[in-house]
Amino acid sequence: MTVTAAFLADLRSCLPSDQVLTSPEDLIVHGYDGTWLDHLPDVVVVPRTTANVAAIVQVACAHGVPLVPRGAGSGLAGGAVPACGGVVLSTTRMDQILAIDRSSLIAVVQPGVVNATLQNSVERLGLFYPPDPASLNQATIGGNVATSASGPRCLKYGGTKDYVVGLEVVLASGEVVRLGSRSHQPTADHHLLQAFIGSEGTLGVITEVAVRLIPKPEHRGTVMAAFNHLEDASDAVSRILIAGVVPLALEMMDQVTLRCVEEYLKVGLPIDSEAMLLIDVDGGTEAVGLQVDLVADVCRAAGAAIVQPAASDAESARLWRARRSTSSSFGRLRPNKLGEDISVPRSAVPTMVRAVQAIAREYDLLIPLFGHIGDGNLHPNILCDLRDRTEMTRVVAAARAIFAASIENCGVLSGEHGIGMLKRDFMSQCLDKGALALLRRIKRTVDPMGLLNPGKVFD
Amino acid sequence: MTVTAAFLADLRSCLPSDQVLTSPEDLIVHGYDGTWLDHLPDVVVVPRTTANVAAIVQVACAHGVPLVPRGAGSGLAGGAVPACGGVVLSTTRMDQILAIDRSSLIAVVQPGVVNATLQNSVERLGLFYPPDPASLNQATIGGNVATSASGPRCLKYGGTKDYVVGLEVVLASGEVVRLGSRSHQPTADHHLLQAFIGSEGTLGVITEVAVRLIPKPEHRGTVMAAFNHLEDASDAVSRILIAGVVPLALEMMDQVTLRCVEEYLKVGLPIDSEAMLLIDVDGGTEAVGLQVDLVADVCRAAGAAIVQPAASDAESARLWRARRSTSSSFGRLRPNKLGEDISVPRSAVPTMVRAVQAIAREYDLLIPLFGHIGDGNLHPNILCDLRDRTEMTRVVAAARAIFAASIENCGVLSGEHGIGMLKRDFMSQCLDKGALALLRRIKRTVDPMGLLNPGKVFD
Repeated sequence: MTVTAAFLADLRSCLPSDQVLTSPEDLIVHGYDGTWLDHLPDVVVVPRTTANVAAIVQVACAHGVPLVPRGAGSGLAGGAVPACGGVVLSTTRMDQILAIDRSSLIAVVQPGVVNATLQNSVERLGLFYPPDPASLNQATIGGNVATSASGPRCLKYGGTKDYVVGLEVVLASGEVVRLGSRSHQPTADHHLLQAFIGSEGTLGVITEVAVRLIPKPEHRGTVMAAFNHLEDASDAVSRILIAGVVPLALEMMDQVTLRCVEEYLKVGLPIDSEAMLLIDVDGGTEAVGLQVDLVADVCRAAGAAIVQPAASDAESARLWRARRSTSSSFGRLRPNKLGEDISVPRSAVPTMVRAVQAIAREYDLLIPLFGHIGDGNLHPNILCDLRDRTEMTRVVAAARAIFAASIENCGVLSGEHGIGMLKRDFMSQCLDKGALALLRRIKRTVDPMGLLNPGKVFD
Repeated sequence: MTVTAAFLADLRSCLPSDQVLTSPEDLIVHGYDGTWLDHLPDVVVVPRTTANVAAIVQVACAHGVPLVPRGAGSGLAGGAVPACGGVVLSTTRMDQILAIDRSSLIAVVQPGVVNATLQNSVERLGLFYPPDPASLNQATIGGNVATSASGPRCLKYGGTKDYVVGLEVVLASGEVVRLGSRSHQPTADHHLLQAFIGSEGTLGVITEVAVRLIPKPEHRGTVMAAFNHLEDASDAVSRILIAGVVPLALEMMDQVTLRCVEEYLKVGLPIDSEAMLLIDVDGGTEAVGLQVDLVADVCRAAGAAIVQPAASDAESARLWRARRSTSSSFGRLRPNKLGEDISVPRSAVPTMVRAVQAIAREYDLLIPLFGHIGDGNLHPNILCDLRDRTEMTRVVAAARAIFAASIENCGVLSGEHGIGMLKRDFMSQCLDKGALALLRRIKRTVDPMGLLNPGKVFD
């Protein structure tokens, strides 16, 4: 679609001139996200206030122009890609932390605040905002809410959906609606609030987010454990949880990932092991010490070849550097990757990893795999080169095979990335027909013209 | 309303004869809940299967007869009272635990399973289902989901909404829809699943519930602390949480409650104290010991007059017996009570308690107050005698005054009981106009004829 001059004139008449962007370079940089999907928008708007957003939505709807809300564009499912053109509404200039209330443990932010900015701001006050998607240095809180983002720490503390207590949203009608509250107290519209979390911009534009905070855990400890056999690593995970320790994070890197990262970092990772676990615990000094000892003991009993408790923050940071360098190390090997995001029951993790290994062999692809093994959320990354057409055919086939293997192992489509465009076509395989129909009916009720982020999720 | 003979005939034609009840005594016992609200249904149905429920809903909708789902009828907001007559659908015969899967930590139950039955069943396997509403020995899991029930342990472990992973619901169309999954993996319809939790039977009839379980905490410890000054008790609560201990439960009883319970139990409660706290912690032996010591120290530092760590399970049970006897002790003093359920930010608890004391004096009523102080959820219980008309006028006025004080202190309408009929008229004061309108629009989409639990929540 191409928008009309009348539409652009109406948009400009209700917004400050610096909030409407139409240069080719502005359109290009707002046409993609963290996947390789892209589509040019017709115009980009960068509002600063809720009133700006309401005006934009009203004009878009009056002219029947699609509108795609966008945070930092770090999403991994194509949710922020303007699939049908129209307006991209970037929240990056709505980047104010409006309040951090220490006594009530609440923060209120505009949607464009970057996750890490919020984390650092509250940690300076001795508080803690647990949700930590890998993209936390770029991703915005608004985007986190729209995709119901998680991260390693969610094993112990829960994800974005567990921390949002209030939202301000602009509906397709242009109406501004406030849901939930700015306190920990449950409100009578809690279930409506929840309906917007993970709705990927299809129900409204998020213009303000209130989240609850917790006191910052005093200390943190890490145990690294390398296993010759994948099954033993998986067994260790179950034993840790059954022992009553809930680690802050429980991450796994498979052998292919270890070798990729080691080639990049050269820090002496155990590249002969089939799997490496990184287990973080937190709490008071004594609690951390007890948990580190217990976790190390359990790993040894489960048959770990190497067990290394990180006693210092520096040592812990060194171990985590390996985990945080996965993407960079893959980028060094091949120019592109398809980052998958399946989630299977914990007991099915070894079977699923073996299935991915077999798929890698079958399609002759390099597929390092890592993930949040504590909750069964795995990220097989299919490394590739978009310019290599025959390879890309194999990549697409491998992705479908991985997805089929996930379903076969009682898994789901997406652990934490959302549906967007990338997994939209699989929705009918994963969801009950009635559930999908109901989602669509509610979507039509809230956005009768279907202008909010069309072509996504269930479209 | 009175239902037609044709309706009853259709109902009987699609159900086994023992599932349709019309005797006066059956109607009477299904006409009330835990409040003093009541209204006779025209007919009661007691289905055993999802297919039975679907048939009932289809017949009710074909005849335009209201349908009110009901669990154990222990609700405290009138949600299960058939305000407009019609059919009461009791789930009490759908009482089968369908599966407890130890390896995936999931239980699947029919909606009529009593909370305590599920708890006992999973605890025998070393597992744990945290949500523990006070009515757990009567209340059903279906009712817990419909009201999004909480309980003391929710401070640490979260409430019903945090444990439901899957639902089967029958919509007003008679269609059976499955939402979520039977695993811990997040599904693409998570936000739709959440929309049904706390919807009080207005969106559909719950016919199956899948919940996640956690490993059973090994040990439990209790600290009782009595404070001469309410403010010190409130201060102790903040200090405990800031110290990084998240107690399993953090309960308060005010002086009026202490005196009522002591008169009933005669166990030597500290009746000269303004407030008594009961603080439960759990975990491994060492962790429990450390936490009990820390909590006791914090309470002493905050000025507690008496601090009593319960070292044994028996001592802990004795202390909790007082907390569990509040309702019985009130019943001994006066025949009726209006159990309020406000929730204010933790920092506002002392102000709120003082406000309730002033209201009690102003309206010459006995209003013992207790509650989950850890999350600010307080239960002022207005003791009364329904037969005393002039007193009842004062009771209603006092209830309104308590509610107004809650709002004034940034509190909400209901902490955990739901809205039902009791608080329906306050919804517009508490919710954003747009949010309320949106709730109503979604309700109309899902239940266009408005036959599912009419007269409730937002009607």
